[in-house]
This record gives sequence, structure tokens and C-alpha cells, in this order.
Amino acid sequence: MTHRHIIIENITPSVDHGRYPAKRVVGDLACIGAHIYRDGDPILQAVVKWRHKSDLIFQETPLMEIENDEWHGRFPLEQSGLYEFKVSAWTSEFVTWQEWLRRKVKTDEANVAREDVRSDLLEGAEIAQRLLQEQPAYGKQAQLNTKPEETQWIVELIAELQSPGDDLSTVIERAISPEATHFFSLIKPRRDVATSATFVIVVEPALARFSAWYEMFPRSAGLNETRGATFQEAEGRLPEIRAMGFDVLYLPPIHPIGTTNRKGRNNALVAAPSDPGSPWQIGSADGGHMAIEPALGTLEDFNHFLIVAKGLGLSVALDFAMQCSPDHPWVNEHPEWFLHRPDGTIKYAENPPKKYQDIYPINFDTNDEADLWDALCEIVLFWIGQGILIFRVDNPHTKPIRFWSWLIGKIKQTHPDVIFLAEAFTRPKRMKMLAKVGFSQSYTYFTWRNTKQELIAYLTELTQSGMEEYFRPNFFTNTPDILPLILQQGGLPAFKMRLLLAATLSPAYGIYSGYELCENEAIPGTENNAPCEEYLDSEKYRIKVRNWNRHGNIIPFITTVNKARRENPSLQVLTNLAFLATDNDQILACIKRAPSKITDQQNIVIVVVNLDPFTPQRSAVHLPFSLLGEAYINREVKVYDLLSGARYTWSEHNYVYLDPQVEPGHLFYVEAIY
Amino acid sequence: MTHRHIIIENITPSVDHGRYPAKRVVGDLACIGAHIYRDGDPILQAVVKWRHKSDLIFQETPLMEIENDEWHGRFPLEQSGLYEFKVSAWTSEFVTWQEWLRRKVKTDEANVAREDVRSDLLEGAEIAQRLLQEQPAYGKQAQLNTKPEETQWIVELIAELQSPGDDLSTVIERAISPEATHFFSLIKPRRDVATSATFVIVVEPALARFSAWYEMFPRSAGLNETRGATFQEAEGRLPEIRAMGFDVLYLPPIHPIGTTNRKGRNNALVAAPSDPGSPWQIGSADGGHMAIEPALGTLEDFNHFLIVAKGLGLSVALDFAMQCSPDHPWVNEHPEWFLHRPDGTIKYAENPPKKYQDIYPINFDTNDEADLWDALCEIVLFWIGQGILIFRVDNPHTKPIRFWSWLIGKIKQTHPDVIFLAEAFTRPKRMKMLAKVGFSQSYTYFTWRNTKQELIAYLTELTQSGMEEYFRPNFFTNTPDILPLILQQGGLPAFKMRLLLAATLSPAYGIYSGYELCENEAIPGTENNAPCEEYLDSEKYRIKVRNWNRHGNIIPFITTVNKARRENPSLQVLTNLAFLATDNDQILACIKRAPSKITDQQNIVIVVVNLDPFTPQRSAVHLPFSLLGEAYINREVKVYDLLSGARYTWSEHNYVYLDPQVEPGHLFYVEAIY
Repeated sequence: MTHRHIIIENITPSVDHGRYPAKRVVGDLACIGAHIYRDGDPILQAVVKWRHKSDLIFQETPLMEIENDEWHGRFPLEQSGLYEFKVSAWTSEFVTWQEWLRRKVKTDEANVAREDVRSDLLEGAEIAQRLLQEQPAYGKQAQLNTKPEETQWIVELIAELQSPGDDLSTVIERAISPEATHFFSLIKPRRDVATSATFVIVVEPALARFSAWYEMFPRSAGLNETRGATFQEAEGRLPEIRAMGFDVLYLPPIHPIGTTNRKGRNNALVAAPSDPGSPWQIGSADGGHMAIEPALGTLEDFNHFLIVAKGLGLSVALDFAMQCSPDHPWVNEHPEWFLHRPDGTIKYAENPPKKYQDIYPINFDTNDEADLWDALCEIVLFWIGQGILIFRVDNPHTKPIRFWSWLIGKIKQTHPDVIFLAEAFTRPKRMKMLAKVGFSQSYTYFTWRNTKQELIAYLTELTQSGMEEYFRPNFFTNTPDILPLILQQGGLPAFKMRLLLAATLSPAYGIYSGYELCENEAIPGTENNAPCEEYLDSEKYRIKVRNWNRHGNIIPFITTVNKARRENPSLQVLTNLAFLATDNDQILACIKRAPSKITDQQNIVIVVVNLDPFTPQRSAVHLPFSLLGEAYINREVKVYDLLSGARYTWSEHNYVYLDPQVEPGHLFYVEAIY
Repeated sequence: MTHRHIIIENITPSVDHGRYPAKRVVGDLACIGAHIYRDGDPILQAVVKWRHKSDLIFQETPLMEIENDEWHGRFPLEQSGLYEFKVSAWTSEFVTWQEWLRRKVKTDEANVAREDVRSDLLEGAEIAQRLLQEQPAYGKQAQLNTKPEETQWIVELIAELQSPGDDLSTVIERAISPEATHFFSLIKPRRDVATSATFVIVVEPALARFSAWYEMFPRSAGLNETRGATFQEAEGRLPEIRAMGFDVLYLPPIHPIGTTNRKGRNNALVAAPSDPGSPWQIGSADGGHMAIEPALGTLEDFNHFLIVAKGLGLSVALDFAMQCSPDHPWVNEHPEWFLHRPDGTIKYAENPPKKYQDIYPINFDTNDEADLWDALCEIVLFWIGQGILIFRVDNPHTKPIRFWSWLIGKIKQTHPDVIFLAEAFTRPKRMKMLAKVGFSQSYTYFTWRNTKQELIAYLTELTQSGMEEYFRPNFFTNTPDILPLILQQGGLPAFKMRLLLAATLSPAYGIYSGYELCENEAIPGTENNAPCEEYLDSEKYRIKVRNWNRHGNIIPFITTVNKARRENPSLQVLTNLAFLATDNDQILACIKRAPSKITDQQNIVIVVVNLDPFTPQRSAVHLPFSLLGEAYINREVKVYDLLSGARYTWSEHNYVYLDPQVEPGHLFYVEAIY
């Protein structure tokens, strides 16, 4: 905004010049930056005014100029919800005069005695007197920022400035003293006040940034492939999942599964009577999005499941998939919420050449939009009522962006702790926009970023392009729909390697169950030219029973990595990532540095990964010591490998040899810097 | 803006999200970019709507999607003044249906015969009929974009889609034909229309971007140091200045010079009776900012001077310095426009420890602001009336930014061809803001950027940080106030080197007269620790008579460089700069590439400069052939040195040897690429 004299611009954090809120988590400091300047030489003061939206009044925190008209200040974000802030700056007339006088008497001592300095002092007296008199409550000391004895002192100073006598030096010293500066910094009204627009920060629970996710079909938790497990039976898996170190348990839809056009094994058009159907075919005579699939149990069973999970420290995330089976109650109750063919029948989902005859998409262009939106919101509120605080949203990019803006805004007004993960496997700008309008986390392109160059480019975009203010990546290594080629081909070493990357490059990451067993059988023929990432005998269409202790599992490895994540604050933040130069394109190395939450000592982790799951690789890894801060003399660091337990001494140039048959990389904790 | 479905964002060119206009010159194409996308799969169409502000209606130019939701289009900027543009996008329902059908029948020929394709055709008929009927002037063909025979054809197509008979393939072929696509691309009303905010481009004369400036004190154009030359006498210098290849002749203030507190030689506090005073001490009994210093002649003499200059192709730039001598008529007429000391006297300019007793600054915080602004505007309009189209503004950063926004906006409303150069030697953000609010060009930090690293960093900021949309640098090599150390120390080789840098790195550059004679005597003692950049016997306080043919002048060199600038379009644009890697920190190399205005053949110039004026330097210069475009096979280029006339064959790696005693660098014209 262009005010009378003062310009305030480039306020950070902000997204698209303040059109969307920046994201933070509870416990963060809001580090505010602004460019503030004016024409001419007068000296400015500035504050950030801020409040949690539930507070009535704004608090003020001073901003300090760092350099080149760039000002900074910080305030604490102690609660979830929306924080508002704006920057305000004004001309400090008295401080400007002080600085003028200081420069004048400093450069030439002889000046002090000169007649025109007396004129300068008179000018100071005039300014001081005017500022005192302008105070709204002049005479009513109780209402002022300043204390009565201070005001008395200033009144005396003014008298001295008006009749300084012969000892100019003493008067000048008092006039330019810090006490005088302090007094006039507090005084109001402020001159030439300029105030920025109001910016918003959305503050979410810590889990929105730092979380390890585990996706599991509860019906596969049993011992019998012919009958799906119930929630009661699935409870037995929870301690094992928590023991691996996961924080969030994500369940595909748990609602009644339709029977009309139900898909059989491997997406077969006709299901056998025993086929359980895809959980995403939501709705049957047993109910829709607010009901539980009877084969899983009752709502009471589910509540018990949640209690057990909570007791273990596991948060449960539900799938929110806005689509219906032909048997969903809405099909009869609200036909206007679906698309119709010219012959009057309802259109099933189709994305030529793919057809989903078991699913009716929702028609968001319905004339009954208000009721539809309310019904969808009611679903979310219902599950929040059951204790769910995390929703993984299926294909949000096929629904209107303004719907998400409305829904998430509405939910967070009353439930600021709810987290939404966008399954936005779509083009970059749509993926980003969903994050801007409110999604807490998003699926990413990580599964398709394999080379060193790809990973560095993608992580650089995620951490340094401005995206980091609003987009929180969740690096899933696999999903029921995505079995990446590298896992199909690379086997166990690839599973460890990709997990190490996901879990260290991003504070939020996830696996879909079976990953710990290195399940990698894709639909046959998928290793040919047209890469297919579909699981053979996909769990979406069947019940799967697994031996979790089977030979060749990587459970201990996952457990170790998740433990390292919990113990090292530097792995809990996204933006503290710096890549290290290596001489081998198969060796990726990075350093992550953070102040520890517990002590003032910094926490530093160095990750070195062999991206080749087939062959041992060696490389130099270059560690510029500037990345370690100031606390070194001998340019040596002691590192402890959290994976192997080995200790090394590293310098600025180091040698690594990584055999994928042993470990995919090093996960170094920096123990000491010399 | 978030519309029903469609998002339009990241519109370029824009400055601070459209808050300020981007700058272009007459003859440019406005290349418009936008990110446009929506939820779901429907296909979009988009246009840019644009007009010169003096036009009543907006024209439409289609935007095409290049990739990843990034759309582009261009329209011509044929006049100076303001252009407005906005981006509009809509859902193309019929084209979406076509694409759907295309994908459906393409992937499986057997599909064509299937029953559900008949349903798809019915759907297409329904969409087409609805769109036809929605046309506002349905039945009144004259008002439509489409032709009557086209509409008839579509009506027939609809009938076929409704009753396709057995030959589905033929109907489908017609339905997905380009003719049908074309028809429905033109049809209105458009669905889900989203339109962006309106953005502005300010278009200025070509000279605003590409110009070589020459600064000259007309009073020094004579043969007698005891009497200043008149305009009549100064006319004699004009052909020589034009012959060197300069486009703009910039004159320091030409107004009556005050006598009160007039400064003497070398800024002496007391002037001798013969001292002419500083031209920046504006105003005397002979008049103020709208008068001519009598020693220079009359307004008629000045007009004659302008006619001669114009005849030679030289544009004259005047200095606009908003300050007054104590003898300026305003001091008596408008005492409220000045600052007053407590004793009632007017404050002279002072920036401790510096004092300017001969100058009263204007008080922009006066209560009489409106009258003051009008009076200043009147001055500019007066000189425009005399034929002046370029103003070099003295110290604009000490005046309110909103004053500039107002003044330049007001002047350009009626005189869009007027160019303002900001002498904004101030901190970066203030310098940039003056450009944002309207200054056509700005002085820069070029005079203090000497090392390869400094030059690359500064030019990268100027050409790639977003600044290039609104900030046009003018690289002055020297000014009456700035004799850079490198020139003081490096002598003639440094003068050639710095000129070559200024004239090739920036399309606008300038020298202050005496540069061609390599004048480099600074105030004594300036080569000590505290660097002083003041000219000894500065022309600001005296009349200087020079022998322009004196031995050691670099007039032929300047003439050659200016000729190369005029003949090579790539030297007339700022943003086409790419630096080339060299192995020697004293060798700077860059390539500039542009399409020629005359032929379709591209114009490429390679500049190699030895930054060391004392010692010969050698280096490899690496030329990635990707920078040359596609037209090469043997990876060889023939280059012609416009400075020495030598020809070389260059490959991707080349060797240069540059002796500053011979030439400071190469200025290669690329003659051919093999």
C-alpha cells in the first residue's frame, strides 16, 4: 500500500501476496518479514500486530531492521486455528532529530559550540513538546504507555533544549540518550502511520507436519482369506503397527460395499459370490457414508477400535471418497446429485478407456448444490463426532476447488485440529491450489522421482520455491494403486532405499501395508514397455492374509528409521534440507539441521543413500563446514550411523561405500563437531 | 480469482501481482502468459482481451495451452500509452464431449458398435442443441460469429446424432471433425466464464529502452574559461556528439543560478566574483525553473539549440531538480514550500556532515501541498511545451513516492512519449519502487560493480529477478559527482573497458563529457583509504574548456561501440543476456541473442571483456552450443570482432588473450553457424 510516505511490502510469510494463508504448526514461532521504507531520511519504527482469531485485540511485537529496509520480528503460535497479523510502521520524528544531532556533533566537535546547533536544539524542543501535547491522554498519566516520572524528565529536557546555557555538551548528551529514545518510541499518536493488509497463518497440530502413516485394509487383518477380519480382530494388529513407529493409521473406506456391478479379483467385471468388492464402491442397503460395512462390525466395534488405537498413540485417518455405489441410499433419495444419460439412467464413472461400472460419481454441477454440500459436510462432522481427526480425501481434484475452500474452512472453524490429506495425483498447479485452499498435506510425485537429479530438483521445488509456505508433502512409498517399477525390479534393497528416502527427505511419509514384507508382484507383463504399477491380486478386490514375520521383512529397518525420526528434530521439518555434492550419480547425500526442542544444542543429521538397489556404489561426499554453523575448529565431525551403529570421523571430503545387500545408506547423527 | 470452476492465476507480464504496470516499448509484442485450469476433466478455451486505453472496446486474441496448464498468447503494442489486458477462460462443453468420444472410439474399435456409444451421441446432440438455443441472437444470423451455412450444417449434425442409423462411424467422424470444433469455439454464451483482473502495460517510445546518453554542461562548450559558452556556441558541439553515436544529450539545469552563498571552485564556501556557481543552485532575480540562465542565452536561443539537436537526431534531456537557491522567486512567493528553523529562517540543505548553504530543499510536508504539486507539474509541462521529451530527475528518492506516481501519471496521460530517468542513487527497494510508480529508466549501481562476480550477480538481478518487467537500468560510466576509482587508477584502458561493459550489458547507457578524453583527476588524496570519487576542479563549480582532439582520446572506440549497438538488435534489449563460463576471474564473457528486426535471421553478439586494465589476461571461454539455437551441425561459428576487424572460428571451447594496452575485449558478431 502506498501511504503518505511509508511503503510496506513483501510481507512474509504469505502465499500469493496474502490471498491464501501460510501454514504452520502449534509451537512454531511466526517469523515475520517485511520491506519497510520511505522517501527521504526520517527514521522509522515498526511493529507486527497479531492475534489468534478468537482474541478480541491485536498484540504488538516490535520489528527490527536487519539490513537494506528488511525488517523482522516473531511471535509465538500457541494454539491451532487462524492467526491474523498486519505490519504497521511510522515515522519517528524525535529519533530522526536525535540521529541528525548525533551525526552533526560527532563529525566536528567544534560544531557543538556553533550557533546553528542552538537552533537544532530549539527544533528538538519544538518536536518533543508537540509530541507530548498530541498525546490523547496528556495529563491523564494512567492511560499512557509512559510513566509520570519519565514525562517529568522529558519536560525538564525540553526546558533545557529551549535554554541550554553554555554547557551545550551536557544538554546534547541527554537529548540523544537512550532514555529519550525509549520515551519517544512509546509515545502516541504515531506520525505518517502506514498499516499493511491483514495476513493469515493457519496453525495446525504438529501431526500435520510430522507424521509416519501406515495404510491398512482392516478386513485383511485376519487369518482367513475367505472371510474378512472385523474391527475386533484388526485391533490385534495395532500394537505391531505402533511398534514399527507409525503415528497415523489410515483406513480405506469402512462403509457398506455395494453389490451391483461389484468388481471381482483383479478388477474383473463380474464378481464371484465370495468376492468382497472394493471398499471404494461405497453404499448398500446397509447404508452410505455414515455407516459401517457389516462385515467389519458395528459402529460400537469401530469406536472400540479407535479407543485401542488412541491408547497406543495411533491416530486413525479415514478415507473420504465422494462417490457412490449404485446401491447407495443417495441414488434413490437424491437422484439429482448424480449425472444422467439421455435415456434417464445414471452415468457410472468412466475415463475412456477405463470404466468403473460399480461407481456413480457425484455431479457437483447439480442444481441442488447447497443440499449436496451440506450432506458432504455432515459426513465429515459425523466422523469427527466419532473421534476422527484426520481425513485422507480421495481424488479431490475432480471436485470443485471452491467446494474444498468452503468445506475445510467450515470444518476448521469449529475443529481447527482436523487434518486433511489430498490424494491429488494430478497436474502440479491443481495439486498446489488444493493445498492453498486448505489441505494440510498432499500426496506427491515422490513415487516417480528416482534419479538423483529428479530427487534434488523435486525437493528443491518443495522446499525453496515458495511452496513450502503452504504445501506439506506426504511421501508415500506405495499405495494400493501404485507399486513403483523400482520396487517391482529392485526387491528388498529397493524397499529399504525408498523408505529411507521418504522418511528422511519429508517429515510426513507413509507406506501401504505389505511394504514391510517387500510385496512386489505386479500384474503380469508389467515389466514390458508399457509400465504397469498395479498390484497383482490387488487387495482392493480381495481379502489378503499375510505372515507378518515372514523371512525377508524389513520391519526392524522401518522401526529403526522411525525411531531416528522421533529422536532427531531435524527430521521433523521439511525446509531445513541442504543437498551435499557427491561424485557419483547413484549417491544422494543431504544434511538436515535444526535446533533441538529439548536443549539449545543443535541437531544435525546427514543422510547418504545409494539409489542403485542392484550394485554397490562408492563416492566422495563433500561436506562444506559452513553448513555446520560456527562451532568447529579442526574441521572434523564425529558421526554415528543410526542404521549400522558404526562411528566415523568426517571431514570436508569423505568416502562412502554402500552395498545395497547390506544397507541402502547411512543415517548419520552428528555427535560432535571439532 | 476463484470462479465456479476455473482458476486463472500467475498472469504475466505483471509487477507485484498487477499492482504496478509492466513496461514495454512501441513495436514490442505483449507476450501474455497465464496459468489456467479447473477441477475435473472438461476442456477449456481462453483468450486475452486487450485494448489501448484510448480504445473503447477490448479485442480478443486466443491463448493456447503450451504445457502443464500454462497458456500463452501475444498481441502487438503499436502505440505509446497504457494498454489494458485481462484473461478470460471458459469450459468448452462440446469440445469436451468430442474429446471424450474420440478417446472412447479410439481405444477400442469394437466400442463404436456398442449401445452406450449411441447414448454418447445423444448426449452430444443434447449439448449441441442447448448451445445453439442459448445463443442470444439465435435466428438473427447477422449478429453471430458463425455463418448461416455453418449453423445449418450443425443443425443437420444434431439430427444425425439423434438418429445415427447403422453407420455410426461416419456420424462420429463428423461429430469429432475440426469443423465442428471450430463452430463451437466461436459460439456464445460461454460456460463457467472466469475473467481475471485487468492488468496494465505502459508502452513508451523505443528510446526508453535503447539509448546512448551524453551529459554535457553547455557553458563549457566554448574556448574561454573566463566566460561560459552560450547555447549558440554550444550548438557547435552537437554534430561531434552525434557523430560519436549518442542519442540523448542530457543537460544539467539550464536555469538562472543564484548568487547567495554561491559555491566557488571545488565546492569552496565563498565564491570568487568570476565563479559561475553550480547549475543545481536554481533560481535568481532572473527567474526560477521556467527561466534560462542569462549567461546561456534566451529561451529563443535554447529553442534554436533544440532544433539543431533534433535535426541531427539528438534528443535533449533536461535536468529536473526540485530545489531552490535562496534567490529563487518561490522563496518570497511561497515561503510555505520551504522548511523553517525555530528562528524563522529557511533551512538550507544539510546532510551532516555535508552542508549545502546555497540550496533550500522543498518541504513536501507543506500544508500547501496541492499548489506545490501543481507548480512542479507546470514546470514539466512548460518544458514539454518547448519540445523536451526526456527529464533526468535529480534525487527523486528524497521526494514522496506518491508525488511521482501522481506527476508521472498525470504527464503521461497527455504526453505518453515523455521519458523520466531517476537519479535514484539510493537503497535498492526505494530505487525499485520509483521504477514501479513510473520512472522509465534509472541510474544504477553499475559504477560500483567491478569484479566478474559483482557484475554477474548484478546483471542477473536486473535481468532475471522480475525487475526486468519494470526497471530499465541506465549504465552511466561516470557523472559529475562520480569518478569511479577504477577510472582514477586504470586510465585509458579502464575507460575503454568500462564503456564496453556499460554499452553492451545494458541497452541504455551514458557518459559524462570528458570521459572520451579519459579525464580522471580526482580531488587529491583520494587514492588513500577513504575513497573519494569527486572530480578535481569539478565542472559543477567552474567553466571547463577542452581540446576534444587531444592525444589519448577514445572517441574512435566509443564511435565503434555505438555503431555496433545500432547495427545489432541483440544489443538493444536487456533481458537476452546469458553469461559464458570462463576460467579466469578477470575475463567476463556473455552472449546476447535476438531476432533481427529486418530479417528473420537471428542476431547474435558475444562480448568478452578483460576486467583488468593493467595486465594482459588469457582464458578459456566456454560456449554451450545450446545457446545458439538449433542451426548448427559442426559446432563451429564464424565470429567477426567489431572492435578489431579480426575473424575467428569458435567452437564450444575457445581461447582468448586480451591485452588492455591493445583492446579491452572482443565484441563479436556471429557471422555464421555451422
